[in-house]
This record gives sequence, structure tokens and C-alpha cells, in this order.
Amino acid sequence: MTTPARRGRPRSEEADERILRAAHELLVERGYDKFAIDEVATRAAVAKTTLYRRWPTKDHLLVALVAKIQDEVSVPDTGDIRRDLSVYLTAVATGLDRMRHPGRDTGGTDRSAGVVAELVAAAARHPDVGDAVRGMFARRNALPLALLDRARERGALPDDTSSEVLFDQLAGALYYRLLITGAPIGADYVEELVDQALARTGTTPRSERT
Amino acid sequence: MTTPARRGRPRSEEADERILRAAHELLVERGYDKFAIDEVATRAAVAKTTLYRRWPTKDHLLVALVAKIQDEVSVPDTGDIRRDLSVYLTAVATGLDRMRHPGRDTGGTDRSAGVVAELVAAAARHPDVGDAVRGMFARRNALPLALLDRARERGALPDDTSSEVLFDQLAGALYYRLLITGAPIGADYVEELVDQALARTGTTPRSERT
Repeated sequence: MTTPARRGRPRSEEADERILRAAHELLVERGYDKFAIDEVATRAAVAKTTLYRRWPTKDHLLVALVAKIQDEVSVPDTGDIRRDLSVYLTAVATGLDRMRHPGRDTGGTDRSAGVVAELVAAAARHPDVGDAVRGMFARRNALPLALLDRARERGALPDDTSSEVLFDQLAGALYYRLLITGAPIGADYVEELVDQALARTGTTPRSERT
Repeated sequence: MTTPARRGRPRSEEADERILRAAHELLVERGYDKFAIDEVATRAAVAKTTLYRRWPTKDHLLVALVAKIQDEVSVPDTGDIRRDLSVYLTAVATGLDRMRHPGRDTGGTDRSAGVVAELVAAAARHPDVGDAVRGMFARRNALPLALLDRARERGALPDDTSSEVLFDQLAGALYYRLLITGAPIGADYVEELVDQALARTGTTPRSERT
């Protein structure tokens, strides 16, 4: 069997991108529970079979979409771990906040966790979606975990710091507020969180405390 | 108007308890998506109208059930903040772990977040369920937050510790692993988490590190 020669990006990749862009638009316009997967195919101008072959359910499509949104958040490594964590976590928090209530004009009163909550529920209900979600986070979290490893290796974090436990504390606080308590996760909160989590390193907090 | 005299516990409270016990049994036996609210009424031997008047949907009933489970976890205050946090968070983690997959015999391979994920999704979908969930956590979390306040006041935590941020880091790490990464939240993990979060207080970790 011969593989056909390809020039540029494969056609399937282009279709994937059109599908994900269409899904993102529908999500922002209406919210997750207010559009059908068929509408995504129509808007992306791909055959339904193409879409279903790639992502068998709306939940699978959601995982791919969230992965794409995550990949757009860069993980800086300037050598200043406090600053790098603040920048990264602020970007994560901004992304999470945007996903709180896409497509709903609630005047800021709806504090529901929206899309991320749907993702969490889908992961709990369908083992294969769960595997996909956990795989996505494992792949993505490898970047900030490596950032913390490097900071520990150069002595910017105590020797006995577990990168995983520290990252759980930081990312966990954001998701806990998003999904459970509904408390805000703005830039001020992220600064306070990073300062407190890193306070034991003995460096001066970046933000002034009152 | 006169209020009728009451002896002992009001009848409605007894009915509530029977309803919640029946719901808990069905949840453990089958899992959240595998029973109907009418079955709860039948098993609890109450009229459906009684149940629906109290909790209009299965999601509302779930909030009440989780609140009851939370209330069974005590918040010790022995004066040793590290120990008190370990005991409390281990109990929370055990409760969360038990809710991962009630009613499913998955041989320990299913790492889905089960009931808590359903609660999170219901809170995101229905504003009144969301308010009930956030109110439940606000009421419940007041206890560990007061524990941290008292520890700070007696000098067991640094003066500038925010109880809320520290609690977000601790509870957040557990929920993040439960809902997002699927990583285990056993007693060993809780010890490591508490040790690392409190390390800046300068007290010796309770657990030996390898």
C-alpha cells in the first residue's frame, strides 16, 4: 500500500480546525446546551459523517475544543517563578472565567461554571470522555509542572517542594472557586494565591498587602 | 392564628430524614443517573407531593443529600492546626472518594467523579440549584475557615495568612484531583498536601518524607 503524497497541511486537519472554530462560535453565541452537533457540521461546511467520525458525540467535541483553548495559553519561563506563575495562572483564570457563561447575557449575576462543569459531568458519565479529559490535562499540565521542576532545580523553590502538590494547590484553588464556591478568580485573587503559596520560599511578595 | 403545639421532632423533619436516607440508598445501589425521584418517595413511604413540595427536582434532593453527608464530617480543633487539618481533610477526601462511583462495581478502574460532578453540572445549569450549592458550601466552609482564623490568631499560622486562600489551596487540590485529573486523594496525599501548604509556618512535617 502506498501513502498518497501530501502538500501543506493535510485536508483532515483543515476540516478539524473549521469544525472547532464553528463549535466555538456556537458555544459563545448560545451556550453548550443550546446547539446541536449537526449545526456545527453545517456551519463548518463539512459532511456530518466527517464530524461524527472524528468526534462521535458533542462531549468529545467539547474536549477537543477545550484542549485547543488550553493550547493557546502560553507557559512563560523568564526565570522569575513568581512572575511566571502569576502570568500563567492569570491567563488560565481568564480563560475559565470566559467559559463560565458563554452565550448568556446575565449581567454578571450568573456565577455558574458553565462549560467546564459540562466537561466535568461528561467525564464522569462516559469513561472514554473521562479518559480524554484526563489525558488532555495530563498533557497540558506537563508544561507548568516542568516549570516548577526547573525552579526547584535552580533553588527558587525549596528542595522538598513537590511540583505536583504545589500545582494542585494553585490550579485547584481556581477550579474550586469556579466550580464549587462561585467566588471570583480575577487577577487580584491570582496574585494573592501565588504570593501565599510561594511565601515559604522567603521571596518578597510582588503585590502590596493592605 | 395559633401555632399548633409540637412534641418531639416535627413530622416534616422525620419525613425529610426518611427521604434523604432512601435517596442515599438508591444512590449507593445504582448511581445518580439510574434512579427516579418517584422511587425515592416509594422507598421512603411518603407521598410524592410531600417530596416534590420539599425538593422540586432530583438535583435539589442531591444538594440536600450532599449537605447531610458534609454535616457528618466533624471539624476538630485540638490546638494542633496541622493535625486538625489532616484529620478534617482526610475525612473530606474519604467522603469524596466514596461518592466517585456509587452503585458501580468497576473494580477500581473507574476514576470518574460521579456524584460531585453531577452536582457541579446541576449547579451550572440551574441558577436556583447553583445558589443552593454555593450556599451549602458557604455554610459548611465557615467551620474550617474559623479553624484557620483561630490558628492565625494564636500564632500557629503567619499573621498575613488569608484563611480563605489557604482553604482554597487545600480543598481545591482535593476537588481538582477528584474532578479534573482523576489522581488519587488518599491519606498519604492529604498528609503531603497539608505539610506542603503549612511548610512556611516552620513547624516540622508530621509525615516522614523519602
